[in-house]
Amino acid sequence: MPLSAESLRQIDTPSVLVDLDIARANIARFQAYADSHRLKVRPHIKTHKLPMMAELQLAAGAVGITCQKISEAEAMVEGSAAIRDVLITYNIVGEQKLLRLKALGQKIALSVVADSTTVIDGLSSTFRTAGEPLTVLVECNTGANRCGVASPAEAAALAAHIDQAPGLIFGGFMTYPPAGGEAAVQAFMTEAKARVEARGIAVPVITSGGTPTMMKAGDAPVTTEYRPGTYIYNDRSLVERGACGWDDCALTVLATVVSVPAENRAIIDAGSKTLTSDLLGLSGYGHVLGRDDIAIDQLSEEHGRLVSALPINLKVGDRVRIVPNHACVVTNMVDCVMVVDGAKPGAVRVEARGCLV
Amino acid sequence: MPLSAESLRQIDTPSVLVDLDIARANIARFQAYADSHRLKVRPHIKTHKLPMMAELQLAAGAVGITCQKISEAEAMVEGSAAIRDVLITYNIVGEQKLLRLKALGQKIALSVVADSTTVIDGLSSTFRTAGEPLTVLVECNTGANRCGVASPAEAAALAAHIDQAPGLIFGGFMTYPPAGGEAAVQAFMTEAKARVEARGIAVPVITSGGTPTMMKAGDAPVTTEYRPGTYIYNDRSLVERGACGWDDCALTVLATVVSVPAENRAIIDAGSKTLTSDLLGLSGYGHVLGRDDIAIDQLSEEHGRLVSALPINLKVGDRVRIVPNHACVVTNMVDCVMVVDGAKPGAVRVEARGCLV
Repeated sequence: MPLSAESLRQIDTPSVLVDLDIARANIARFQAYADSHRLKVRPHIKTHKLPMMAELQLAAGAVGITCQKISEAEAMVEGSAAIRDVLITYNIVGEQKLLRLKALGQKIALSVVADSTTVIDGLSSTFRTAGEPLTVLVECNTGANRCGVASPAEAAALAAHIDQAPGLIFGGFMTYPPAGGEAAVQAFMTEAKARVEARGIAVPVITSGGTPTMMKAGDAPVTTEYRPGTYIYNDRSLVERGACGWDDCALTVLATVVSVPAENRAIIDAGSKTLTSDLLGLSGYGHVLGRDDIAIDQLSEEHGRLVSALPINLKVGDRVRIVPNHACVVTNMVDCVMVVDGAKPGAVRVEARGCLV
Repeated sequence: MPLSAESLRQIDTPSVLVDLDIARANIARFQAYADSHRLKVRPHIKTHKLPMMAELQLAAGAVGITCQKISEAEAMVEGSAAIRDVLITYNIVGEQKLLRLKALGQKIALSVVADSTTVIDGLSSTFRTAGEPLTVLVECNTGANRCGVASPAEAAALAAHIDQAPGLIFGGFMTYPPAGGEAAVQAFMTEAKARVEARGIAVPVITSGGTPTMMKAGDAPVTTEYRPGTYIYNDRSLVERGACGWDDCALTVLATVVSVPAENRAIIDAGSKTLTSDLLGLSGYGHVLGRDDIAIDQLSEEHGRLVSALPINLKVGDRVRIVPNHACVVTNMVDCVMVVDGAKPGAVRVEARGCLV
């Protein structure tokens, strides 16, 4: 990272740093892959929650962005005039949210997903009186077993339901694939598409997503669009899975050693309220750059415990940089991240965090 | 909870609710125990981060509050004229923090902890030029193996170091006890106190803390003060340990069912960005009130997965209330909590959250 030692010293800790050069390279790498596989890119902004990062993704070739919540979409649209095409990959339920969705739909090209007639009927009852119809995709379960209809037949039935619902336009199919699930995506979506087309309804978009599987997105050629999120920053979970290296991790947590109470133990000022308790199947709560011998074996809220089989060789006041297990949840913990562009760090407010709804 | 069904319906989800009647009862219960054991109470505000809750604790008899960060202390002092005695149970390291600590020390009775000469010397070099000296307690490791000196002899040596440091006053000993660690606290502190007094130095305060062990605080009678945090809200970890019941949990997360994709599975709009991934040794991510059959077995960022061996018997749009595993980290996720006083809910800004330093 080109951040100067002097700049680093001036940042108080704990602090979340984002290296813009690495983020740009990460964006470019997947955009090139997607271009070569004729896939559109619609990055998920949950990872950064920053209009400026979405602008970089759009400038690189993304067709729009993905959000998980109305509040994220509102903050993005408010924060950048470049953001005018948003897919919210969520079942929107409840009167308050539907009214906000309707207002947002007046401003931009907006689409959402649904996996039940209850959700579709709620969307229709709101958008039948809107000037612009809402595009709705059917969420499909291709093995992740979270939301989504269980079969291509159900997907086709919901597509027809959307197609006939006042105020709505059928937009296609959406899935979040399981690890190694390209074949399952290809099989499910091919059948669902055929069933819908047999009813005389077009399927404009088949959108899949997820950074862990993104470099195999081309193995499900029925897919037209991909929605990676974490790829812009990367994190320890992706390094440990072999998806990237430590040098590809744009987001790090800068922390200070506040105690060295034993030869093999040091305590830093970043705990679960900074690094979070997300494990993503890993052991330990992050990777200390340059110190493969250290494990972050325990977090309390504002303390992280570093242990080593070797002498810990740190002193009070030393600083360490940590690649967290999961970048997306770490940006959500802080009001501001320190964005480093070249050698110059600057605080940038995380516009879309903290808005629960 | 006396919250009316109509009030509940008007709150959008996910939302963090705090029942003030339950919080008041929780405060009163421990204050009564402490009074009967001649223990002073200095609640840790990390759990609520709200000046209004600290005021309730002080009104019930607390002698001051505990914070974990300077930013928390600043927000508390700014937010309430009643808060004028603050202990920050943290090694304060680094020039920026020391200057903020010095400014805070001009306004209130301030104390901090230290477990090394490096930290003490940093505090002294800052406070030797301050009008008011800073009170410093020695942090002791009584078995939790986080921060703290390892032996009573080291504790006594640091006490003497503080006693001779310009700008500092030795304030006593502090520990965060391990589970079932009352005997260890009693043994460590009794010896440390004797060693310091043998040097002709008084030990004004011996402060221990932690909700899990609070109802046994009297088993370490050398202790003069106790610092529970979670007790004001309680949470699933405390219920599962037998420390309280579900009716004693003041903090709940209100969530909406957004998908029922299978007979035994439902998805709610609260995930790891609301409930957090904190497990605290438990299985699953929270307890659905009134539904002992349900486990929250998986969280993604904005989705929680509910599974049951029985039919899940929920429909899209239904609402559930969840007691999270760990209350302290949930308040830290949100800009506002909904405080319910009687039947009337009102949004209250979580003043001390998001300030990392």
